[in-house]
Amino acid sequence: MTSGRHFLQIPGPTNVPDRVLRAISYPTIDHRGPEFADLGRAAIDGLKSVVRTESDVVIYPSSGTGAWEAALVNTLSPGDRVLMFETGHFGTLWAGVARDLGLDAELVPGDWRSGVDPEVVEEKLRADADQRIAAVAVVHNETSTGVTSRVPEIRAAMDRAGHPALLLVDTISSLGSVDYRHDEWGVDVTVGCSQKGLMLPPGLSFNAISAKALRASRSAGLRRAYWDWGPMLDANTGGYFPYTPATNLLFGLREAVAMLHEEGLDQVFARHRRHAEATRRAVSAWGLEVLCRVPSEHSPVLTAVLMPEGHDSDELRSTILGGFDISLGAGLGRLAGKVFRIGHLGHLNDPALLGTLGGVEAGMRIAKVPYRPGGVTVAAEYLADTAGEAG
Amino acid sequence: MTSGRHFLQIPGPTNVPDRVLRAISYPTIDHRGPEFADLGRAAIDGLKSVVRTESDVVIYPSSGTGAWEAALVNTLSPGDRVLMFETGHFGTLWAGVARDLGLDAELVPGDWRSGVDPEVVEEKLRADADQRIAAVAVVHNETSTGVTSRVPEIRAAMDRAGHPALLLVDTISSLGSVDYRHDEWGVDVTVGCSQKGLMLPPGLSFNAISAKALRASRSAGLRRAYWDWGPMLDANTGGYFPYTPATNLLFGLREAVAMLHEEGLDQVFARHRRHAEATRRAVSAWGLEVLCRVPSEHSPVLTAVLMPEGHDSDELRSTILGGFDISLGAGLGRLAGKVFRIGHLGHLNDPALLGTLGGVEAGMRIAKVPYRPGGVTVAAEYLADTAGEAG
Amino acid sequence: MTSGRHFLQIPGPTNVPDRVLRAISYPTIDHRGPEFADLGRAAIDGLKSVVRTESDVVIYPSSGTGAWEAALVNTLSPGDRVLMFETGHFGTLWAGVARDLGLDAELVPGDWRSGVDPEVVEEKLRADADQRIAAVAVVHNETSTGVTSRVPEIRAAMDRAGHPALLLVDTISSLGSVDYRHDEWGVDVTVGCSQKGLMLPPGLSFNAISAKALRASRSAGLRRAYWDWGPMLDANTGGYFPYTPATNLLFGLREAVAMLHEEGLDQVFARHRRHAEATRRAVSAWGLEVLCRVPSEHSPVLTAVLMPEGHDSDELRSTILGGFDISLGAGLGRLAGKVFRIGHLGHLNDPALLGTLGGVEAGMRIAKVPYRPGGVTVAAEYLADTAGEAG
Amino acid sequence: MTSGRHFLQIPGPTNVPDRVLRAISYPTIDHRGPEFADLGRAAIDGLKSVVRTESDVVIYPSSGTGAWEAALVNTLSPGDRVLMFETGHFGTLWAGVARDLGLDAELVPGDWRSGVDPEVVEEKLRADADQRIAAVAVVHNETSTGVTSRVPEIRAAMDRAGHPALLLVDTISSLGSVDYRHDEWGVDVTVGCSQKGLMLPPGLSFNAISAKALRASRSAGLRRAYWDWGPMLDANTGGYFPYTPATNLLFGLREAVAMLHEEGLDQVFARHRRHAEATRRAVSAWGLEVLCRVPSEHSPVLTAVLMPEGHDSDELRSTILGGFDISLGAGLGRLAGKVFRIGHLGHLNDPALLGTLGGVEAGMRIAKVPYRPGGVTVAAEYLADTAGEAG
Repeated sequence: MTSGRHFLQIPGPTNVPDRVLRAISYPTIDHRGPEFADLGRAAIDGLKSVVRTESDVVIYPSSGTGAWEAALVNTLSPGDRVLMFETGHFGTLWAGVARDLGLDAELVPGDWRSGVDPEVVEEKLRADADQRIAAVAVVHNETSTGVTSRVPEIRAAMDRAGHPALLLVDTISSLGSVDYRHDEWGVDVTVGCSQKGLMLPPGLSFNAISAKALRASRSAGLRRAYWDWGPMLDANTGGYFPYTPATNLLFGLREAVAMLHEEGLDQVFARHRRHAEATRRAVSAWGLEVLCRVPSEHSPVLTAVLMPEGHDSDELRSTILGGFDISLGAGLGRLAGKVFRIGHLGHLNDPALLGTLGGVEAGMRIAKVPYRPGGVTVAAEYLADTAGEAG
Repeated sequence: MTSGRHFLQIPGPTNVPDRVLRAISYPTIDHRGPEFADLGRAAIDGLKSVVRTESDVVIYPSSGTGAWEAALVNTLSPGDRVLMFETGHFGTLWAGVARDLGLDAELVPGDWRSGVDPEVVEEKLRADADQRIAAVAVVHNETSTGVTSRVPEIRAAMDRAGHPALLLVDTISSLGSVDYRHDEWGVDVTVGCSQKGLMLPPGLSFNAISAKALRASRSAGLRRAYWDWGPMLDANTGGYFPYTPATNLLFGLREAVAMLHEEGLDQVFARHRRHAEATRRAVSAWGLEVLCRVPSEHSPVLTAVLMPEGHDSDELRSTILGGFDISLGAGLGRLAGKVFRIGHLGHLNDPALLGTLGGVEAGMRIAKVPYRPGGVTVAAEYLADTAGEAG
Repeated sequence: MTSGRHFLQIPGPTNVPDRVLRAISYPTIDHRGPEFADLGRAAIDGLKSVVRTESDVVIYPSSGTGAWEAALVNTLSPGDRVLMFETGHFGTLWAGVARDLGLDAELVPGDWRSGVDPEVVEEKLRADADQRIAAVAVVHNETSTGVTSRVPEIRAAMDRAGHPALLLVDTISSLGSVDYRHDEWGVDVTVGCSQKGLMLPPGLSFNAISAKALRASRSAGLRRAYWDWGPMLDANTGGYFPYTPATNLLFGLREAVAMLHEEGLDQVFARHRRHAEATRRAVSAWGLEVLCRVPSEHSPVLTAVLMPEGHDSDELRSTILGGFDISLGAGLGRLAGKVFRIGHLGHLNDPALLGTLGGVEAGMRIAKVPYRPGGVTVAAEYLADTAGEAG
Repeated sequence: MTSGRHFLQIPGPTNVPDRVLRAISYPTIDHRGPEFADLGRAAIDGLKSVVRTESDVVIYPSSGTGAWEAALVNTLSPGDRVLMFETGHFGTLWAGVARDLGLDAELVPGDWRSGVDPEVVEEKLRADADQRIAAVAVVHNETSTGVTSRVPEIRAAMDRAGHPALLLVDTISSLGSVDYRHDEWGVDVTVGCSQKGLMLPPGLSFNAISAKALRASRSAGLRRAYWDWGPMLDANTGGYFPYTPATNLLFGLREAVAMLHEEGLDQVFARHRRHAEATRRAVSAWGLEVLCRVPSEHSPVLTAVLMPEGHDSDELRSTILGGFDISLGAGLGRLAGKVFRIGHLGHLNDPALLGTLGGVEAGMRIAKVPYRPGGVTVAAEYLADTAGEAG
């Protein structure tokens, strides 16, 4: 299909707003000049307002994977144990990064259909009598499954256990679309990136850093240069960076944060919850099953849908891409071929969601996936009945 | 709704493709320099390929209204009679322009639900024994009603009557989306503009000119300067213009024509017919009535929908705009409040159409317009069953 | 030369600022929707603030030539006499437009090196005992010669003569770069367009209209439709237009006017006077002659330079374009081959002017035009000595 | 100065071409979809054509500092000795990165006015009897000084010494503007980034990797995850990346490489040599001294100019930025306040260079830096005499 605008309904990168695309196309400026300092400060302060922190945020020219690495190398030493969780593909990958860096990653097994269990966290920490666990690392929104972990409850579990481990949280696919509070929730390092709820192209990632994490960084023994918080924080005080930042993406970040605040963060979050509910209602009307099986853990930003037995999700995705110009997310890792993921995060409105659901419905018809027609109509009714409540 | 991309589903201006938006944002160039000549020629030749003519095309920096005026002042003399048709709002407006310019516009009454009747044309011309009628002016696609007139049959009627009147055709909302053939159909002056099927912002209009029309222009007595074909055609031979052209829109025109040919004109036309059929099926499933009452005259580019008695289309449009960020066309003139118009022309794909129809369905629910749910599902099924046939 | 940004130093179209180029690339919106009304009003009010009028301004999708026509057809009747001035190519062309429209244009001969003589205006009007002259039409800045006419003195001359003729002023290449005051100077119709001091691409033109001109329009007998002020002013009250406006250029107009006010109109005007003086000093240092021979009439926006005998300006321009990627203005009409014109209007800073002058100096060396080296150094010294005074 | 386009004449980031800015503003696409594979391959193959290698190139979302780190962590083990050179600020910084990562960086002292001495390389390697030196790391163009090191001669020296150390070369500010040949010159790892000669905004960096370096990576003991060549090369074979790439900058990279080849790499290199010579002639005419003191090592991409005694380069830069909207490079490290650097790399044409030199000349006048006027005129003459030779 060569006409019309592509529907990028993967769970990130998301549809970048025109305002942001225009912002990143501004002529690059001198990263050491006075004009830059305003940009640098605006970008950093803007991110703080979205992460909801009063402490430090550092921004890297990198993908989110880099910010995973930064969170680890700045706070930990070779051989340190990190408690990690197999919530899905990305939780597992993060553990792989930790191992590559010489850490002792303990990956708590999971079913890829539910979030981190706070009770398991408490149990594991209580069992760690000699406090070998230096950090607990959690993915807030597991992008591969559409399951959100309950970070405040995990924090409470850690507190109950009275364990000094740092809490590291990956907000890569949640930040800017799902309520998140670095300070209030007591997170030590928040890991995020640009191309999801922040509505930017990929290329920026960041860490938000608690005072405790900053203290930890002073004695952390893992080798680091590019990711080192120290020179970043020093240069950031003036609005600058220790090496050339990704200036044009910072133009975009400033614009994107402005857009989030124009809409209002609470409105943004409500919009995503509403779109997620509409999507689940469509899935249910089709007679299909949502992968996430804990209602309180449904992701507001994406919905992973289980394929009926004997049908391959990649074939369906290919049909929908070819026939209707809609990109959907694949099943990753052990879910390959078994689920498709509908991204409804970032810059999205009701008709775009309905168009996506309509395209999925039409695609199932072509691909002969067994389904009951009418999911898109059910979603439209829900959106009608909740119109004006958000967004 | 402050998030997501607006759905501009009026029957023009249409959703401008990103490629075209980027093209019009290129730095303006010297309109008398060598680089411009390539642009000028490409723009003119590109238009010819879409209008399907081997004869002349002139391009104005103006709206389509200007090209209406140009068609008249270049070919006619004060007091000349022009046979015009009340196919709807725009047919009527064109007659007003003719009168303002001192012409004797005879407006054949119409019901705003059907196109020009070729038999009436023949009858009128046969009755014009002293050949006072200098021109027959027809709107190919009446944007206010969603009715297309059958130009080749009108031409045949004129030929049967053996009358020398010029045939002037307004293709403002059809060109680039509906099959049209200036030369093959024997049109003398084609009137068009940029912001519909050509997928450009408004600001360019044009005339395609038959040899007969060009001859007529040499003795036409209406005063003209800006619209004068003569200096235009002289300058155009070198790729230039007699006054400063709208350079950046010409960048866009070159790009838009390239896009039409990449997709293939026949594919483009089939895509629009398919989208129109999907839309009418949704309307029918809702239990509503399409304004156009001649099946062979259904517009491929927009569908005007009659409101149930006692319901106002402007209120519905306002609900849909406010609730779902979709712009629909208003009822114009005598249709004010009585119809809404769904534009499905220009740069459009299936999910965008489904999103539009979903939003209309949701809007009717909010506005308590009586309808049967499921139109969008019916449209999705039709699109599924015809996927790959066009677009 | 395929690298680097082109130097568009013709006297318009000018180098369009990136902010404006990005603004015109925004998605086109519904020209009848509520969002448009804000744009329409902002565009109209913005123009008023630059023309310095409290009365009406209408904006056309057209080139400046269209606004010439609009000024005439709205205020005059067939056969009306218009006093016009051969200040150069454009003054002459405007008279041609008037004649094409059926007016009796009296073109006062000129030498193409000086502006309109207010004494001649007074004399002509005093001699017009039966008040056959309906309008006096003056080009504020003659783009073909780099000569500015003294509009307030012309107004005073008309007042002294006690003649009721309308005063029509073309500000096409002056507006936004040269001080101009529609109300204070008592102008009846101001004619302008987008692609010069307003820093936009071509495609918009306008008329500012005094109360007297508006009264005249009610009885003016020239035929008009597209250019008719009446429907324009009616629709403009709500921020709308009677036909589809050039929406994307209006986005640009809003942005461009904002930029002019951010810099400050007085600063903008001073910047242009300073750049013009720097250019004339370079020309003088080269030993060449500026075409304008009345010091008080030197144009702040362009400088026409006389070629030494035996040298062709088009050859020099071609050398400079090919060798240094700088576009300069050609000699027009009777000045063809005899002058080249350096545009220094619109969005321009000191290094761009110095780069232009450096390129001209280098071009003269290649083309073996006799000159004394060092003009660019003289200009740099003047700019150094006046830095911070404007811009 | 609020009008006109900024002159970004630091030695990177450079003035990004409009084509590239438009390219990076295209809607982000699915980095796992079929359309992406074409982009990924085009980006990688494009880079190979500029680095002139048939072997592997990996692209990171990061600044150039990241690619420094990548070159080290993929090839070396903790405690490995690396022979590095104090050619200036960046050579010194790279050694700091090496130390941060646990390497034994031996920094050969330098005078910041000349390049790496191939004889010293040979000597050092010959003296390394037990082959403790694992790598020789050289900056091709030292951005802080405007001095280029002679890489082929360094390679020859290594070969003469018969030492197996890897040769790592930083081409950050040279690649795409200065002739460079990864394969032909026998380089093992080439380090580069986007924002200099490649004419992109910052945010991409890369390594080109010889077969020998790739073999070394299999046993290299430094910990790595983000920078690991292995998963990159695996994913790259299909045109994909192991984590989300900076898609929009890759759009730009594809466009920028196309532009370099349209101009022709040899032409590009010649253009830069010509601009550098013009700049040095201006400096010499001003009576000032170029920092680089080895004629054969003059950088084609930037010129560092020594300030006369008692004058501060930052004050001059500030005057020039404030007065003329030109950004120049500061003296870095031990050169702070003592030199200013004129960048003439990337997307640049003659008038932009002349405008820059004119602005510097004017700035010196304001800042009362002792100089002889006329440097810009001398540069213009040189450009005239060599016009058409390049660019």
